Amino acid sequence: MSAIDWTVIESADPCFNPGQLHHKETVFSLGNGYLGTRGSFEEGYPGACPATLINGVYDDVPLTSPELANSPDWLSLTIIIGDLDTEIRHRFRLDQGIILHYHRSLDLYRGILTRTVRWRSPAGQTLDLEFERFISLDDAHVMALCCRLKAIDFEAPIELHASLNSYADNEGVFHWNCLHQSELENTIGLHLQTKRSQILLGMAAQLIVSDETVSDETVSDEAGSIAEIQSVAIHGCPTLIAKFNARSNQTVTIEKRVTVFTSRDTDAPLAAAQNKLVGLSNYETLRSAHEAAWEKVWQANDVMIEGDLTAQIAIRYNLFQLIAATPREDDRVSIPAKTLTGFTYRGHVFWDTEIFILPFLTYSQPALAKNLLNYRYHTLPGARRKAAALGFEGAMYAWESSDTGDEVTPTWMPGCDGKKLVRIWCGEIEQHISSDIAYAVYQYWQATGDDDWMQARGAEILLDTARFWGSRVEWNEDRHCYEIRNVIGPDEYHEHVDNNAFTNRMVQWHLQKAIRVWTWLCESYPERARELAQQLGMTIERLSHWQTVIDKLWIPQDADRNLIEQFEGFFKLEDVNLADYEPRHKSMQAILGIEGANQRQVLKQADVIMLLYLLRSGAFTDAAEGYDRETLAANWDYYNPRTDHVYGSSLSPAIHAALACEMDSPEEAYEHFMRSVLVDLVDVRGNAAEGIHGASTGGVWQAIVFGFGGIRLTEAGLIAEPKLPKAWTRLKFQLQWRGQTYSFDLRSADSQDDRRDSAAIDSRLDLQRH
Amino acid sequence: MSAIDWTVIESADPCFNPGQLHHKETVFSLGNGYLGTRGSFEEGYPGACPATLINGVYDDVPLTSPELANSPDWLSLTIIIGDLDTEIRHRFRLDQGIILHYHRSLDLYRGILTRTVRWRSPAGQTLDLEFERFISLDDAHVMALCCRLKAIDFEAPIELHASLNSYADNEGVFHWNCLHQSELENTIGLHLQTKRSQILLGMAAQLIVSDETVSDETVSDEAGSIAEIQSVAIHGCPTLIAKFNARSNQTVTIEKRVTVFTSRDTDAPLAAAQNKLVGLSNYETLRSAHEAAWEKVWQANDVMIEGDLTAQIAIRYNLFQLIAATPREDDRVSIPAKTLTGFTYRGHVFWDTEIFILPFLTYSQPALAKNLLNYRYHTLPGARRKAAALGFEGAMYAWESSDTGDEVTPTWMPGCDGKKLVRIWCGEIEQHISSDIAYAVYQYWQATGDDDWMQARGAEILLDTARFWGSRVEWNEDRHCYEIRNVIGPDEYHEHVDNNAFTNRMVQWHLQKAIRVWTWLCESYPERARELAQQLGMTIERLSHWQTVIDKLWIPQDADRNLIEQFEGFFKLEDVNLADYEPRHKSMQAILGIEGANQRQVLKQADVIMLLYLLRSGAFTDAAEGYDRETLAANWDYYNPRTDHVYGSSLSPAIHAALACEMDSPEEAYEHFMRSVLVDLVDVRGNAAEGIHGASTGGVWQAIVFGFGGIRLTEAGLIAEPKLPKAWTRLKFQLQWRGQTYSFDLRSADSQDDRRDSAAIDSRLDLQRH
Repeated sequence: MSAIDWTVIESADPCFNPGQLHHKETVFSLGNGYLGTRGSFEEGYPGACPATLINGVYDDVPLTSPELANSPDWLSLTIIIGDLDTEIRHRFRLDQGIILHYHRSLDLYRGILTRTVRWRSPAGQTLDLEFERFISLDDAHVMALCCRLKAIDFEAPIELHASLNSYADNEGVFHWNCLHQSELENTIGLHLQTKRSQILLGMAAQLIVSDETVSDETVSDEAGSIAEIQSVAIHGCPTLIAKFNARSNQTVTIEKRVTVFTSRDTDAPLAAAQNKLVGLSNYETLRSAHEAAWEKVWQANDVMIEGDLTAQIAIRYNLFQLIAATPREDDRVSIPAKTLTGFTYRGHVFWDTEIFILPFLTYSQPALAKNLLNYRYHTLPGARRKAAALGFEGAMYAWESSDTGDEVTPTWMPGCDGKKLVRIWCGEIEQHISSDIAYAVYQYWQATGDDDWMQARGAEILLDTARFWGSRVEWNEDRHCYEIRNVIGPDEYHEHVDNNAFTNRMVQWHLQKAIRVWTWLCESYPERARELAQQLGMTIERLSHWQTVIDKLWIPQDADRNLIEQFEGFFKLEDVNLADYEPRHKSMQAILGIEGANQRQVLKQADVIMLLYLLRSGAFTDAAEGYDRETLAANWDYYNPRTDHVYGSSLSPAIHAALACEMDSPEEAYEHFMRSVLVDLVDVRGNAAEGIHGASTGGVWQAIVFGFGGIRLTEAGLIAEPKLPKAWTRLKFQLQWRGQTYSFDLRSADSQDDRRDSAAIDSRLDLQRH
Repeated sequence: MSAIDWTVIESADPCFNPGQLHHKETVFSLGNGYLGTRGSFEEGYPGACPATLINGVYDDVPLTSPELANSPDWLSLTIIIGDLDTEIRHRFRLDQGIILHYHRSLDLYRGILTRTVRWRSPAGQTLDLEFERFISLDDAHVMALCCRLKAIDFEAPIELHASLNSYADNEGVFHWNCLHQSELENTIGLHLQTKRSQILLGMAAQLIVSDETVSDETVSDEAGSIAEIQSVAIHGCPTLIAKFNARSNQTVTIEKRVTVFTSRDTDAPLAAAQNKLVGLSNYETLRSAHEAAWEKVWQANDVMIEGDLTAQIAIRYNLFQLIAATPREDDRVSIPAKTLTGFTYRGHVFWDTEIFILPFLTYSQPALAKNLLNYRYHTLPGARRKAAALGFEGAMYAWESSDTGDEVTPTWMPGCDGKKLVRIWCGEIEQHISSDIAYAVYQYWQATGDDDWMQARGAEILLDTARFWGSRVEWNEDRHCYEIRNVIGPDEYHEHVDNNAFTNRMVQWHLQKAIRVWTWLCESYPERARELAQQLGMTIERLSHWQTVIDKLWIPQDADRNLIEQFEGFFKLEDVNLADYEPRHKSMQAILGIEGANQRQVLKQADVIMLLYLLRSGAFTDAAEGYDRETLAANWDYYNPRTDHVYGSSLSPAIHAALACEMDSPEEAYEHFMRSVLVDLVDVRGNAAEGIHGASTGGVWQAIVFGFGGIRLTEAGLIAEPKLPKAWTRLKFQLQWRGQTYSFDLRSADSQDDRRDSAAIDSRLDLQRH
């Protein structure tokens, strides 16, 4: 393992660029599934956007929908050279003085963010600083940071301020009431409550300042502290102040260990945080446990690419951010669209989780995939309320979901100009999500063979959403077929469309699987089937209605051209040549207007293509089901050039990459893949500042495994038909399939034979399973 | 002068009641017209709602309308007994330990808020504290507080934390970006910018801790400080920390002087705040100047009531809050509905200012009245934009106005349940405000004879709003009359009504005055008339159209009963007996629902009554104009019992009081008057926590002067026809009328003759004019 393959580095000039603050804060985010913290600097800068988001801690916002409340900033550490008795005092800040050296790196393998700086103060004092921080993957409630300070050419008093700052807002919205704060010796505590949802949060922190020469054993001992530490009771911002006299070339270590709980975890979160802090191991021990946890995760989840260092680091970076966002113990939360790294979409959960992210977990950490599906199980009551409110039966999932599963899509949003409100219809009519969730349930069941979960929970999700569709479809007497009118498909440039092919075909598939699962349940778990029959009204009439819908649901297509029509009337819309608009730096919707895009054949994202991908041959073990190659090619040629790849949706490039491989175009696939895998690192779309593109992190894994790796699922096991891009000499990953671990070590064309061998279906991985 | 007549006291048990925090914060608010600060405690409490609102500092809020941004909390002062070396540390807070004595008082005459406390800490240490604060009326940019501390029975280190806390939110909305902060010796500074409107704010503070025995001359001298003071760079919350050793029975004085500027005042507000701080007088000198300024204001504005201490203190309290909210130097701001003391209505300006508040200023401090009318002149462009956007000519004032005069009424608001959004129509159809402003312009002109302002600015307001009405009225061919359909009158329980009598009659009056003012302008200022003729298109045809509208505008009435009908069809609505709903604790709209109230004869506030008041005989010097006594009596008897006096609008009780006097019912008037004058002090309506009821403070002055005092305006001067309530033995006030000061010293029936004498029109006041 080479460190360089695992490291995201920032050292370019200028190392401090206020305009890049927000993008870099996203890039250097850390997380452990319980919470995420953006990569803001400890010393703070005007205009910075620090955020710590704890999953599930939603608070309402007046006039619009609930959001994940920004939790107290635990990073805050101010370093000041000089004290009251010295004439000159200088705060360490990169925008003042001179930066002689700067290097920031994120070690993906260990989950550690490091920054080394040599800084000369405006008074000419040279200081070496080495910052390090982590959010423990070993213990969800622990965060820690460390700063090693060395005065190079001066001796002076140094003052440190380490706060827990509860004044963290969500772009101007402030969610907390401060109930209590404590300041004791070298520890501080905060007890907060969200203003509306009344969730309690307790956070505690301890500061230790020690001389590097003191042995490790005594670091956690207060006696090891070389500084006088005092606590200050700033309302809502308890602060520890430490002072010491820096001697030339002496290295002083500052450690800040932080613990956090909420009333989602325990009744008394501040006491829990304080208790944990009391018994906490020292910094080095905490870090070792954290590193060991990451190492274990990587053993099962790494994707190795040889011959393309950028792609190698980028795919690991995407998986790192995806793992950092995945809840590990809590099954009443899911993964927000911007993970736990930004405010956009308010921490809401979309189809992004089930369609883009879940396959990675389903095929590599099925226990975590199950957690996320349990979130949908727990939010069935919200989905039922939504269906009932709109006059339907069964369960209709929220397009945007928070803690209860009730619909939380904002009804109005400021438009492109930031002022005029635009009506958002997705909450009412972007309905395909109910089938997307059913798809994920079925995929999980197929990949894991987890019959127990399927009978206890999965079947109920799949059947009750099928009930919704049974009540949703409309009979068209003239055409003598069922229809689904007035929806939005995945391509959100087109609203209020009739018979969206993606939606209708997925509903058809959904009802087919519902009947299959119901049959299985009756046979294998008759007791549970009886229960559900009663609860959901599973009658012969209902099943027969579903079968009629399957048979009679209209899917618009042009049989002559072997084309699926995205929705009824799409082919009659005005055509657009996207090349005519180049060069451009905004979406086609921004250029044409909402109505303009609605009336033209231009796509925000793959819609038919997405359907062909989900129901491709090889996606399920039933090979007869999938779309054939010719249909795929015809539709690809039609829709691909009409898709707004760069400024449309961030979701589709990875799917385009996967399907381009299917059509033997790995180089074209590579272009789509890189657009997706670098979307945050290189800020391809100009909006990485808003947070990690969660769907994209999962999409690139699918592009790797099902695209470049060419994995097909068969009853006999997994088969690889790899299509590697030219530069890649080797692609190595592993999958979990029905309780077994499959390792794939695929070599480039130079070693074609070798590659086929290594893809043998039974080649177990020699890494330990966990 | 007796102190008790001027003092609002809180000493009742329990002296610390968390449930009353917000109400008392409103009651003990201070202000100087430039800014207002709620009466929150220096030491801070969970759930407290501290606010400092600087007039004109509006920031946008996403999804809804702009609001006055809550500015940094300058009060913050934490007092801790003990330090690092002592085992026990106790923060002074009333909700811990034992309160042995508590007394808070607001001295209305001097504008000083004082609190004396004897507190025993949980460790048994007894501390005397005497807090004092003021917001300088002498210098708009200066605030100061002082705390005198005496350790009664212990000796221990004491630590003080004095912050400028920029983390001040508007009920969860946070408006500031912190650009810079400074910490130097014993001073701190903050440089902030509103997130959207980009207004800069600079605030600076200095802390001085001295021994009481040190002479006054050296108090401002740092050398006088007995404590070690250091500054701490908490991000967004710079803090000064002072430590000293308390000796038994030694009194230590802590002074915090604060300065503030915004980019509405100067280009570099932080520098301005710091510079002012450097040259600032000592605390005592600042306070003396402040007290002298208040004394001067009271000399011209006091209302003295003898025989009724409650009414005496209450009327002074109302005037105090009104003066504290009145801009003194800035003519681009006005007085928000909740003055500068609460977040409700977002600091927006309504008709409350022109109809309820302005008469007090017009008749007592005309220069300040002119400032407020200039605000309407400066916002004419916004009013013109609103008219144009809705397809009308001229200027149509915003129902809710902020800095630009554009309409800022929210379109949707959470309803009674706090969740479901209710459509607010006032921004579009509560249109009477344009005539209300014209009324205030005309009243100011009549009271002051300020022809210069009238020709330069007033005429343009009056004429351009008249143009709006000329384009707004609709011709009804069947009835052969003009109508105004689809409006909301003052009574907001009824929306979308046609031919609201208040609106239509005020429009008629407005157009009459417009023609009169135009005629005057052409005669007296032909040059300016030519300018305006060109600018506003003042043609013969327009004037002739206005005259036709005056003649043909339909005012619904029932001539047989001498009743004005509130709007077309009002008499046909279902009748309601309000007594049937007693006892009740909410508004009739909350009980009946929006639609239920809309369909019934129940009023949120005086509508026809308000019209009769504004156009009463004696309101203007042209006696022939006003409504006669019989019309008043008939309508009073009809509408008074149908009005939701307690839980409807806070605006109408004072007007009912004034008109009840007109009908020789001073005791009935007194009941309405007390409901209005105590609305904040006693929290009559249960919503004083949200801020001072600005309109009510002005309304009670009108009830005093035009009701109980019975002042009539005549060409020969002012005449009093007093109607004092039984308990009042004397009522004394003064008015400004056309450059002269009129003093009225009215005695009760016991000294009837004396009273008539003292009301003689030429009895000048012996107090100095200013």
